Amino acid sequence: MAGSSTSNLDEAILKKTTDASLLKEKVSGYDWSQGLDYDKLLSSYLCTGFQATNFGLAVNEINKMIQCRRLPIPQDKYIDNEDEFTIIKSNCTIFLGYTSNLISSGLRETIKFLVQHNMVDCIVTTAGGVEEDFIKCLAPTFLGDFKLDGKTLRERGINRIGNLLVPNDNYCSFENWIMPILDGLLKEQNDGVLWTPSKLIERLGKEINNEDSVYYWAAKNKIPVFCPALTDGSIGDMMFLHSFRKPGLVLDIISDLRRLNLMAMKSVNTGMIILGGGVRNGADFCVYVNTASEYDGSDSGARPDEAKSWGKIKKDATPVKVYGDATMIFPLLVAQTFAKNRQK
Amino acid sequence: MAGSSTSNLDEAILKKTTDASLLKEKVSGYDWSQGLDYDKLLSSYLCTGFQATNFGLAVNEINKMIQCRRLPIPQDKYIDNEDEFTIIKSNCTIFLGYTSNLISSGLRETIKFLVQHNMVDCIVTTAGGVEEDFIKCLAPTFLGDFKLDGKTLRERGINRIGNLLVPNDNYCSFENWIMPILDGLLKEQNDGVLWTPSKLIERLGKEINNEDSVYYWAAKNKIPVFCPALTDGSIGDMMFLHSFRKPGLVLDIISDLRRLNLMAMKSVNTGMIILGGGVRNGADFCVYVNTASEYDGSDSGARPDEAKSWGKIKKDATPVKVYGDATMIFPLLVAQTFAKNRQK
Amino acid sequence: MAGSSTSNLDEAILKKTTDASLLKEKVSGYDWSQGLDYDKLLSSYLCTGFQATNFGLAVNEINKMIQCRRLPIPQDKYIDNEDEFTIIKSNCTIFLGYTSNLISSGLRETIKFLVQHNMVDCIVTTAGGVEEDFIKCLAPTFLGDFKLDGKTLRERGINRIGNLLVPNDNYCSFENWIMPILDGLLKEQNDGVLWTPSKLIERLGKEINNEDSVYYWAAKNKIPVFCPALTDGSIGDMMFLHSFRKPGLVLDIISDLRRLNLMAMKSVNTGMIILGGGVRNGADFCVYVNTASEYDGSDSGARPDEAKSWGKIKKDATPVKVYGDATMIFPLLVAQTFAKNRQK
Amino acid sequence: MAGSSTSNLDEAILKKTTDASLLKEKVSGYDWSQGLDYDKLLSSYLCTGFQATNFGLAVNEINKMIQCRRLPIPQDKYIDNEDEFTIIKSNCTIFLGYTSNLISSGLRETIKFLVQHNMVDCIVTTAGGVEEDFIKCLAPTFLGDFKLDGKTLRERGINRIGNLLVPNDNYCSFENWIMPILDGLLKEQNDGVLWTPSKLIERLGKEINNEDSVYYWAAKNKIPVFCPALTDGSIGDMMFLHSFRKPGLVLDIISDLRRLNLMAMKSVNTGMIILGGGVRNGADFCVYVNTASEYDGSDSGARPDEAKSWGKIKKDATPVKVYGDATMIFPLLVAQTFAKNRQK
Repeated sequence: MAGSSTSNLDEAILKKTTDASLLKEKVSGYDWSQGLDYDKLLSSYLCTGFQATNFGLAVNEINKMIQCRRLPIPQDKYIDNEDEFTIIKSNCTIFLGYTSNLISSGLRETIKFLVQHNMVDCIVTTAGGVEEDFIKCLAPTFLGDFKLDGKTLRERGINRIGNLLVPNDNYCSFENWIMPILDGLLKEQNDGVLWTPSKLIERLGKEINNEDSVYYWAAKNKIPVFCPALTDGSIGDMMFLHSFRKPGLVLDIISDLRRLNLMAMKSVNTGMIILGGGVRNGADFCVYVNTASEYDGSDSGARPDEAKSWGKIKKDATPVKVYGDATMIFPLLVAQTFAKNRQK
Repeated sequence: MAGSSTSNLDEAILKKTTDASLLKEKVSGYDWSQGLDYDKLLSSYLCTGFQATNFGLAVNEINKMIQCRRLPIPQDKYIDNEDEFTIIKSNCTIFLGYTSNLISSGLRETIKFLVQHNMVDCIVTTAGGVEEDFIKCLAPTFLGDFKLDGKTLRERGINRIGNLLVPNDNYCSFENWIMPILDGLLKEQNDGVLWTPSKLIERLGKEINNEDSVYYWAAKNKIPVFCPALTDGSIGDMMFLHSFRKPGLVLDIISDLRRLNLMAMKSVNTGMIILGGGVRNGADFCVYVNTASEYDGSDSGARPDEAKSWGKIKKDATPVKVYGDATMIFPLLVAQTFAKNRQK
Repeated sequence: MAGSSTSNLDEAILKKTTDASLLKEKVSGYDWSQGLDYDKLLSSYLCTGFQATNFGLAVNEINKMIQCRRLPIPQDKYIDNEDEFTIIKSNCTIFLGYTSNLISSGLRETIKFLVQHNMVDCIVTTAGGVEEDFIKCLAPTFLGDFKLDGKTLRERGINRIGNLLVPNDNYCSFENWIMPILDGLLKEQNDGVLWTPSKLIERLGKEINNEDSVYYWAAKNKIPVFCPALTDGSIGDMMFLHSFRKPGLVLDIISDLRRLNLMAMKSVNTGMIILGGGVRNGADFCVYVNTASEYDGSDSGARPDEAKSWGKIKKDATPVKVYGDATMIFPLLVAQTFAKNRQK
Repeated sequence: MAGSSTSNLDEAILKKTTDASLLKEKVSGYDWSQGLDYDKLLSSYLCTGFQATNFGLAVNEINKMIQCRRLPIPQDKYIDNEDEFTIIKSNCTIFLGYTSNLISSGLRETIKFLVQHNMVDCIVTTAGGVEEDFIKCLAPTFLGDFKLDGKTLRERGINRIGNLLVPNDNYCSFENWIMPILDGLLKEQNDGVLWTPSKLIERLGKEINNEDSVYYWAAKNKIPVFCPALTDGSIGDMMFLHSFRKPGLVLDIISDLRRLNLMAMKSVNTGMIILGGGVRNGADFCVYVNTASEYDGSDSGARPDEAKSWGKIKKDATPVKVYGDATMIFPLLVAQTFAKNRQK
């Protein structure tokens, strides 16, 4: 066989590079000869490739939010808020969203840190993301194992969330704590109050009066917490039991919709950090952390670019999605952004 | 080197099987020598292994629901429902849950088939899972590509959901359709009606008056549809716009919580089929179809066994989760269960 | 608040569609009013969206391979093969690749169907993908459960592969079967044969002499089977044990590299179907089925478009990747393509 | 409705915890009031839950390997190695495995750090995992984007690996470098050398003579590198081209199988760290990092417990799998284990 017969192959394998304009930043990892320096190590992630690069991009995106937030609010910005909770307090309103399981995990302490120190402006979460914070003030959650058998656990009165365990007694304590509060809410309703999930969460944050609680700080710092499907979890169970004893409590979601949308609409700029959830919400600056992929068309799996098509992210924004479990990624993101900026 | 020196290795590699009690069903695939028979092909999945086996188990689990549902309701079962929508009509109440994107996809036609023919008893979905059904009655959704650029699409006024495209004009049509309905709701509220998501969806199902609609049939067949976070999507946008024109509409989620929980509580038996969503809800018979894995502790990623620890699935139940995109899996599941049973 | 203040919002929500050229095919699902017709049901997948659409595209892509393969080979195509196994027999050489676990599953029967009836031209697999086929001729594999405990299974002498169980006795039988064959190979090597993985697999296919075996038919139909890392699994264990008894057997991978590349290079057209594995190999027509996503930069997670950048897929080719477990998807793909075409 | 009618519900919701023996370690996150201390932050991961906990467990498992490796080799341990590369040098032989893409990424620098400082004893990788290290010595790899279009890149002569870009010129340089080496190998073969992948990699490591190279250090430190499918990538292309110019080179995989298995068999204890790849190999101490899930029965998706059933991991071992992209996780794992121990 003649050498010429491999010419097609040669062409495929040995094609010349004709346009190097895309080739800018070299891939390189951490230079360990400089010793173990965590800050430099995490800074090296930007040029490491794959999700390490996305982590580096997310650090940059969050730092943009923080810088923007420190600028003064333009004087001509007309601010006429409906209530003190939706007042625009800074030049970049940062929304933080997360799923229930993250409050069950130790990420709760990192979220609390952000809320306690007024580093975010608004929270959106799910029912479990609300109630598990309060329950943890009453009794702890424990480490378990993904493989523990459900039937055996049930017999012992223990609930599993991934590799976490919540004794069912905790929910009994929760019932004892929340029932009198629900009584109070109903009484105030009869005096004319229209309850909404965000108002209820604020009330619970005040009632818990515990510095370990995310929502204690949210109430104290007037950071609104939205949770349209608040009836989905244990609070829902309690409300259902309560409805037999004292029926009539109403929880309106349209007023909350109005509060949340007004906040977004009136903001000078917006930043959004969403952990575990979907990408179809957007802002000027966006960071998403979750494990889902786009192929099934799900909200959480979507790439942030999809939100551009909906007009929820500006056309020239640079949203970042880091694929991975938020318990692993978010504390390090906070370290390289909010925590570092606070130390300065 | 002496042969004896491999004795440890021999032991590891050539260990004898000492207990064969676990070894029952042989793995085998479809026997193609019998020609192409789709029914036999899908029946062969049970013994094929991996997710094909889970598909086969899901077929069995759904068929158990259907069989149980055909049995007469025990006479001593006390039935005292609050309203005609939550009346227990059969011996096994089947709940169907799905995420928004599945109504955007062609799975809508399969869901409609189940609702039209009274094969399920209750629906739980998200905001998009409601509104996209109505919007499709006004104008179609189109096939696209996962890689279409968001910025370009936005400039053209086209929204992307995975590999689907929704012209933004559709949402304009939706606004035109729903605004007068919201006016009507507010008027009725002033006459004393307390609106809830399920009542609103029933109303919309009547208003659309279109046999292509899932919720047209749900309203007609008195199958309640629950959606606690109904304000999360386009309906929420419309309600927000409406709140400027005519403020005051209230949407209560506690009444719906009561309706949904009463249905579950009063049911003789319960079946649950959840597409795309989480496993922390349960029933006597359960089938879940989604793509998420358990390692991040998320609700959708959890194995059904987790719901046993919460007491939401009975200890000896045999819930099944099929890992995969529901668009691929659910029509075949319906074919092998509801459709086949209907033909008989 | 004046109505004018929602103008920005109006603009975002109610932007007009200005270019409809992308909007061609309407999304729609199966029309169940026509009864249960599996063929029509699967045909409806193309317009269903998400992975159902990718399934439909994969059906089309494989049908293109089959059509192309039926055309006559151009007369001016110079064919000068090194051996009868790498002779180009048709106008489109179809390569089939799969991972080990698929031979362990019932997909083996579907693969055997394709090989038995000469519907593919070349196989590329991993060590387990070879040996498990032979072992299944000696003793069966059983259905198990993903959650069975490894320690308990080990004590009983049972190996787990996902939800499959392989008694360790099967590997003892495999040893008894293969050792005399290895003796024979060594003897022939001393007579001048240079063994390669593909030659060894062909020999084993002849020795097993069992119509259930994929490689029996591959040997009979002169379909070459490549497996560069043939020593990675149980065959490797056997060769290692054998190397103590009778050292000296050589297995060359460069000769196989040459055979495989020559086949690809001399083909008139090429088709490639890869189940479970990576996308960095390509052809004129390509279909991939696996569950991996691109975010970690892995080979199996990559989108097929990546292979275009490497020149392994032609620039204007239309490769398809279906995300899902091949046990669920591949039998249906074969039904809608190879099996249907064969019946015609 | 009487209160008694919720008794079943009460029972489900308010079941008492009867056995607390599983409840040991409380879930808690990092206490940010102590300031930003990366070491303490990463130490807090063990009690954070989900994959953060698995990260903490992996740190412990690797530290066990390191501690065990520092103990003296038992004197009665019979050591009779075939060659200097497979000599057992320590009380715990640590195997490091990784996929090709990780050498393409900046993880290469972390792997080099481990090899340079003799912190691992044996490497197992794929073809790309070998060649990309050498190519990076000739010309750099660049950062790109997952969404860059394959056709456009091909036209420019640029190859994509996830979000990395490799100019095709690099492969031309690689050809120029390796072809004379292959000439030399063939010459030595004619003098009686039987080449294997590990011997070839050692030779290339010496030839590259570049301290940036993983395999330079492997050769220098006599750490063997195994790669049974060495012909799968660019080296294969080069060998194929070379086979036309100067045919006859043989690459034997059975000798390497023997070397690798002897190392494992003679080791006093074994540790295994596998990045990106499968779990069906095992050792006394094992850590796996990848993104795959078990549901499709794939090797990389399997839980480590599966390897116990195969006798590849001891029954009472505590293998750990961290789900996530290794570029994000492995540098931090190394920081908390090898790097920290080295500083002491």
